[in-house]
Amino acid sequence: MLLKVGATIGILGGGQLARMLALAAAPLGLRCHVYSPEKNSCAFDVVHDYTIGDFEDEDALARFADAVDVVTYEFENVPAKTAAFLSRRKRKPVLPDPKVLALTQDRLVEKDYVASLGIATAPYAAVNSAAELHEAIDKIGLPAVLKTRTLGYDGKGQAKIMKASEADAAWRALRGVPCILEGFVKFEREVSVIAARGADGQVECFEVTENVHRDHILHISTVPAKVSPALGAEAKRVATKIAKAFGYVGVMGVEMFVVRRKGAQHVLVNEIAPRVHNSGHWTIDGATVSQFEQHMRAVAGLPLAKPLRLGKKVEMINLIGDEILDTARWLKQPGTSLHVYGKGKPSPRRKMGHVTRVWPGK
Amino acid sequence: MLLKVGATIGILGGGQLARMLALAAAPLGLRCHVYSPEKNSCAFDVVHDYTIGDFEDEDALARFADAVDVVTYEFENVPAKTAAFLSRRKRKPVLPDPKVLALTQDRLVEKDYVASLGIATAPYAAVNSAAELHEAIDKIGLPAVLKTRTLGYDGKGQAKIMKASEADAAWRALRGVPCILEGFVKFEREVSVIAARGADGQVECFEVTENVHRDHILHISTVPAKVSPALGAEAKRVATKIAKAFGYVGVMGVEMFVVRRKGAQHVLVNEIAPRVHNSGHWTIDGATVSQFEQHMRAVAGLPLAKPLRLGKKVEMINLIGDEILDTARWLKQPGTSLHVYGKGKPSPRRKMGHVTRVWPGK
Repeated sequence: MLLKVGATIGILGGGQLARMLALAAAPLGLRCHVYSPEKNSCAFDVVHDYTIGDFEDEDALARFADAVDVVTYEFENVPAKTAAFLSRRKRKPVLPDPKVLALTQDRLVEKDYVASLGIATAPYAAVNSAAELHEAIDKIGLPAVLKTRTLGYDGKGQAKIMKASEADAAWRALRGVPCILEGFVKFEREVSVIAARGADGQVECFEVTENVHRDHILHISTVPAKVSPALGAEAKRVATKIAKAFGYVGVMGVEMFVVRRKGAQHVLVNEIAPRVHNSGHWTIDGATVSQFEQHMRAVAGLPLAKPLRLGKKVEMINLIGDEILDTARWLKQPGTSLHVYGKGKPSPRRKMGHVTRVWPGK
Repeated sequence: MLLKVGATIGILGGGQLARMLALAAAPLGLRCHVYSPEKNSCAFDVVHDYTIGDFEDEDALARFADAVDVVTYEFENVPAKTAAFLSRRKRKPVLPDPKVLALTQDRLVEKDYVASLGIATAPYAAVNSAAELHEAIDKIGLPAVLKTRTLGYDGKGQAKIMKASEADAAWRALRGVPCILEGFVKFEREVSVIAARGADGQVECFEVTENVHRDHILHISTVPAKVSPALGAEAKRVATKIAKAFGYVGVMGVEMFVVRRKGAQHVLVNEIAPRVHNSGHWTIDGATVSQFEQHMRAVAGLPLAKPLRLGKKVEMINLIGDEILDTARWLKQPGTSLHVYGKGKPSPRRKMGHVTRVWPGK
């Protein structure tokens, strides 16, 4: 389906990703309609229209579907049932396909799927009981991280296990829900690839981005990443393989660890985000097309752009919590673009904005 | 006045300039409220709120003033009375100051003002009658252009006079309104400087842009312009002088002719636009800060950014009328950004969008 100028893209979720998607849709001549349960969603400020409603409110969802030409989402925890309801007969196409949601909402299913493609991941095992946790530890070794299979992000729903004696406490801390144990990886660095796949099957990857986390939250992303050309090519190959296997339409982020095996760098896939990704925010200011525009192009059935980096180096720094209160220094810094999400009061671990620094030249 | 995150900027006018201003305000954490007489204004798609009303509708204007923290405008033909009404006691600051509107809405007053600053312009003379037109021709020579003093743009309200025998017809064609006769300038090229002045008096100019017109409408803007470094410095000096003399707050465009005198390039000021300007559209994709963001920073009382060009060359091409129907080729071109204004049906001389081409590197 090719959307025409004036067509409307519906976005599930009203946070900063929806906001940046809407800002990228406008120059393509596309309108956006945001659906969000939150009354003061920051994406409402920049869209043609919005609907406030729970993800279970079928009346509101039906009205939303009537008002848009296609539906996409800004976050992976949209209930799969909501996406299925919207895409049912006579309603609207949902892109990327809701089946990808179901797959990536469960860490175990996701890892099994990636492994089935012949792509390396950190060692992992399913954990459904305290006994299984001990078996998993025997198999994988320590240290390791116990994670809930669903609904975790930014370090939530995780418990580190350094010694076997901590296992039972970790299991209790996650309240006995189905979990996955992941072995610690001694990585050289963390990188990600933002890949876009168009409705026509064309895949375009942004260049490999190097990420530094602070307290489990992305802190700084930098391009170019300090990786070999071979590693860069391998990382893009992996992301492309996943996007193709999914029959994906839109932008996805693939987080990877860079490890050294027999002297050469290789990647292990850590996590897949079926949406635009924080580590791709640098592309707004630092590339000839942004991940947000690329996603909107894909969802609208338009051709993808070939992304080129602008500048010899680009750096994205997240503004977390109170860091948003000190924007003056960034406003004055040459080559720096400020992105305030307009999310109201800052709380300690909340992503409130980001800045991008571009060093022009080659 | 320094606006805080969540503050609202009111924009008079709802066309593409308002739309691009709103898109630039969002990342600064600022909301926009557009006031426009047109029911389907394209800026409505990307703003927090809007008011539909005539510029003479004082009730609607008062409601608009109540809803915003500061008022700016996207075009110079906002009735000076409207701006004055909004800025009256207990209402809201209007930036740039409405007195600049009054000054630039009249070609004669504008030229007299520029000349009073010791800045060169094309030769000109006031024309209030057919007899005065003949006197003006004797003084200035031919060919020349007769222009209405107010309300002309994109070649409207103009009549070329090649021979003295065409004078009376030209006078009649412009219906006897107060006019100005401007002598033809043998220019080497047309350039413009987009200058921003902050509330604190800081001035930042974008680099000199070279412009090619087609049928009196801007066709292509290119940076770098083919001018000497000395000419570049002179052009920025002239724009800065005007911005300072106006006590200007915001972005303005100064159109200039480059002429050669005694072997060296010099500028003659052609026209001043007290607003963001078509020849500055390249800055969205081709500079580390856009003219739109720079305007919003100034109006919000934030510090201006120091603009740096991205890429070794940047080109902006207007999409006029039906050209908007053939966007596919631009979408596929690497380094090219499409900007569709969402203005509905294209008519022959209507600005429907633009594309920016950036050549990365140094």
